[in-house]
Amino acid sequence: MERIPILKMGKFLLVSIQVDMDDRTAMTLQDDLTGQIVKHHAKGVLIDISSLDVVDSFIGRMLANTAAMARILDAETVVVGMQPSVAITLVELGLSLKGVRSALNVERGMELLRRVGEADLMTPEASADASDEE
Amino acid sequence: MERIPILKMGKFLLVSIQVDMDDRTAMTLQDDLTGQIVKHHAKGVLIDISSLDVVDSFIGRMLANTAAMARILDAETVVVGMQPSVAITLVELGLSLKGVRSALNVERGMELLRRVGEADLMTPEASADASDEE
Repeated sequence: MERIPILKMGKFLLVSIQVDMDDRTAMTLQDDLTGQIVKHHAKGVLIDISSLDVVDSFIGRMLANTAAMARILDAETVVVGMQPSVAITLVELGLSLKGVRSALNVERGMELLRRVGEADLMTPEASADASDEE
Repeated sequence: MERIPILKMGKFLLVSIQVDMDDRTAMTLQDDLTGQIVKHHAKGVLIDISSLDVVDSFIGRMLANTAAMARILDAETVVVGMQPSVAITLVELGLSLKGVRSALNVERGMELLRRVGEADLMTPEASADASDEE
């Protein structure tokens, strides 16, 4: 069975999807990713899909679900490297990936995650929540 | 044809090899990588092979060649995430990957590349060379 590696980079996790995922690979990825978010206290997840020329509704839903799971675990998800054809297909499939942030490439995605993290810290409610936790 | 994505992260490039590469994929990767090193003035290349359970002599040579090409272009190569079984196979194949640095994971690999970069800057010859170039 294929297993997609999850790379830790500081406070963020990077997943580069290069293969067509079947159900089991996708489920394994979701399990691994949620596990790693908790283990490493990750604040953000970058999903690189630059090698995907096509996506189907399955992958689209998987991306949306992964982002939703990460959010519950207090990590933001950014999808990076989406090809124009993929964006067209996703919208045509009725999957507008609401709540999933996008960036042109990994570098900009990281920048975005850092900015989001800083903005969170500046919100009084967020910092109050954070101090309650600790 | 498969195309392995090259992700730019600051001054470094990251390649995550997840698929069994045939000759053409490997050649394309080498072409792409050398092109990107020159285009982005990259100072280091991280090759993640954590998803590879097995390597053959072809992949071993490809890694060594890629590192040699990168070095000529003034970029250090670090292979990260090598599984113990892969290390055993490589040595048994007589490929000790001389001149290729290794690190446990991407994070440590980046750390290593940063230290190597700083050490270069502190060498008087290196900084003299650098100022000649500019």
